[in-house]
Amino acid sequence: MFLEEFHPGDRVILGNYHFTAEDIITFASAHDPQPFHIDPEAAKRSHFKGLIASGWHTAAIWMRLNVEYMQELAAMRAAKGEAMGRLGPSPGFTNMRWTKPVRPGDVLTYGVEVLEVRRSERRPGWGILHHRGFATNQDNEEIFSFFGKVFVESRG
Amino acid sequence: MFLEEFHPGDRVILGNYHFTAEDIITFASAHDPQPFHIDPEAAKRSHFKGLIASGWHTAAIWMRLNVEYMQELAAMRAAKGEAMGRLGPSPGFTNMRWTKPVRPGDVLTYGVEVLEVRRSERRPGWGILHHRGFATNQDNEEIFSFFGKVFVESRG
Repeated sequence: MFLEEFHPGDRVILGNYHFTAEDIITFASAHDPQPFHIDPEAAKRSHFKGLIASGWHTAAIWMRLNVEYMQELAAMRAAKGEAMGRLGPSPGFTNMRWTKPVRPGDVLTYGVEVLEVRRSERRPGWGILHHRGFATNQDNEEIFSFFGKVFVESRG
Repeated sequence: MFLEEFHPGDRVILGNYHFTAEDIITFASAHDPQPFHIDPEAAKRSHFKGLIASGWHTAAIWMRLNVEYMQELAAMRAAKGEAMGRLGPSPGFTNMRWTKPVRPGDVLTYGVEVLEVRRSERRPGWGILHHRGFATNQDNEEIFSFFGKVFVESRG
């Protein structure tokens, strides 16, 4: 999509993700090996009374689903002969919050909403999209959110 | 370490990390498969004129080095028969910024500084440590930083 196609208030569900104990342990063993993320017995004795997912894991799944969503959109548009604006990387995030632990068996629904869209003054042909990413659990509680910015190609 | 041992202004170098093209591609293929992170040829044609590391990768290495540093400290203290305060997970980050791309061959130095230390009102026996994590490149430019909070066990 191009910058011109994003509008404040747009909201998209990116997909669901089911966290298993195996998944939680595999991710955390590589990236965040704290006992309550990788050792079910140690996790039982912790403040959390059981295994919880690394916050990096919760966040990484958002990124993954977001990229997959954009790739599917690009493929659909390519099939119709339509161009797709490029995305640049993100210059940063603010206020990334994990408000409730993610446990084995939890199914999170990930989404994103558009907050603000403006042209970049420093990069002609590009704009900056301000968005809020989030995840809710199976009880419809929001348990993760952050505010992000990303460069998006404009048509003009 | 216990809450009482952290003081505003403390600064620790967590370690160095050498980013290779292979590493950048492997991480991004799993977590952030955008062309400029996983495809050297597509990356050459992008705004960046070459492969750059996913920002999640830059951040994940900070987390990994931080956990390893704490584990080494715990092992040293255990060897001397000293107790080690437990760390809880992070309730959130603010202002995570990537100010310059990380490219193959770059060697980043990661560190952390203590900003504020206070007792938790909601969790007796624990406190909250406010810190700033950062990474500088081989030219001593700071290219990554964020503000974080983490629960730390107190002695009292």
